[in-house]
Amino acid sequence: MKVLIVHAHPEPQSFTAALRDQAAATFRAQGHEVQVSDLYAMGWNPVASADDFSQRENPDYLVYALEQRLGVKSGSIAPDIQQELDKLLWADLLVLNFPIFWFSAPAMLKGWIDRVLVSGVCYGGKRFYDQGGLAGKRALVTVTLGGREHMFGEGAIHGPLQDMLRPILRGTLAYVGFEVLEPFVAWHVPYISDEARQTFLHRYEQRLQHLSDDLPLSFPRLDQFDEALYPLPR
Amino acid sequence: MKVLIVHAHPEPQSFTAALRDQAAATFRAQGHEVQVSDLYAMGWNPVASADDFSQRENPDYLVYALEQRLGVKSGSIAPDIQQELDKLLWADLLVLNFPIFWFSAPAMLKGWIDRVLVSGVCYGGKRFYDQGGLAGKRALVTVTLGGREHMFGEGAIHGPLQDMLRPILRGTLAYVGFEVLEPFVAWHVPYISDEARQTFLHRYEQRLQHLSDDLPLSFPRLDQFDEALYPLPR
Repeated sequence: MKVLIVHAHPEPQSFTAALRDQAAATFRAQGHEVQVSDLYAMGWNPVASADDFSQRENPDYLVYALEQRLGVKSGSIAPDIQQELDKLLWADLLVLNFPIFWFSAPAMLKGWIDRVLVSGVCYGGKRFYDQGGLAGKRALVTVTLGGREHMFGEGAIHGPLQDMLRPILRGTLAYVGFEVLEPFVAWHVPYISDEARQTFLHRYEQRLQHLSDDLPLSFPRLDQFDEALYPLPR
Repeated sequence: MKVLIVHAHPEPQSFTAALRDQAAATFRAQGHEVQVSDLYAMGWNPVASADDFSQRENPDYLVYALEQRLGVKSGSIAPDIQQELDKLLWADLLVLNFPIFWFSAPAMLKGWIDRVLVSGVCYGGKRFYDQGGLAGKRALVTVTLGGREHMFGEGAIHGPLQDMLRPILRGTLAYVGFEVLEPFVAWHVPYISDEARQTFLHRYEQRLQHLSDDLPLSFPRLDQFDEALYPLPR
């Protein structure tokens, strides 16, 4: 299996980085190939802009998705995007590894999503959800957060974490065709002991060793909708 | 009323920019004061990092929220953050104006949230939701998107748009204490006629002229939870 870990944390010594390293080591020990995109270390540019295209279909008015479609065909898309797209297409499993900032991904990672999941390759027209351009690949979201586990779930103060992560799990990963696995969550990280952190690393290792047994989360399929994307009667 | 419009779109002539201008004009015509942060035009830096602090509480290990708390007290937080924070604290109404990228905000705007909603001012400890640091202010999210209205809602292919926007509406704006108004949504924008766009601008103007009548969305209140943030019996 080929694994791409995309990691975004402003502190190189963070526990989130330890999770990244745990994943890389565990996968490699199983004989898998691993690439890591460490966005802060790379100085990744998260801003989708006209500068992402050396040639433009329409130099007077930027429709970002349209220029992505052309740019990736003509080779005029920015080299940093092409490099990440190549890794993404190479991978069988994508791991997004990040600390929760505002119940979602840090801007650094959001900008990887904005720029790398290019229209025309990852999605486009009727190619989304189960028909998405990355169908056949799997994705895992691994997050750290400050909150405690009891603050999330039905009736809890913040509601279910998966509801907060919906734009990433469903709106992004499932949208482009990934089979999305249940997120791995390390709770209350800034406040816990080293032992508790080790326990999270150990649980993560065990989860990753048996990842092939995981059942993906359930999302819409296009055959449940008509041509105009109205729901079909069930 | 004092209004801050935070706008993020990579195309200066976009319809999203027309919505920004419509809002500014409508509010000014009502005698309100308006400031606009046009993040692309400003060359806003969306990356939360150690560079945001000229002095560090802990120079060896970055806990971003901790350094925000110190930085804003000691004046060692980056000037671009302080400037935006001043505007935010000045405003009675915050308008986030953006195109939906991946069912959420462009990285450019996410990085405004990551960097400007500083711990110790906007939230911290038990100061969140109705007790948030920005309680008493109101917030409106104005978005453009490619999808059609029937693709969103219960049973629709993408589910309710407000569920996709949950990390922004609830996890960010309501979390820091804003009264969050129902989003204004311009659907299917890249594909519609100029007339249809004018209709959206006109509807937006009418909405904004009567914004004071709007009832905010409903979110958790801290008095529904105990000291450890477990839900109290109802």
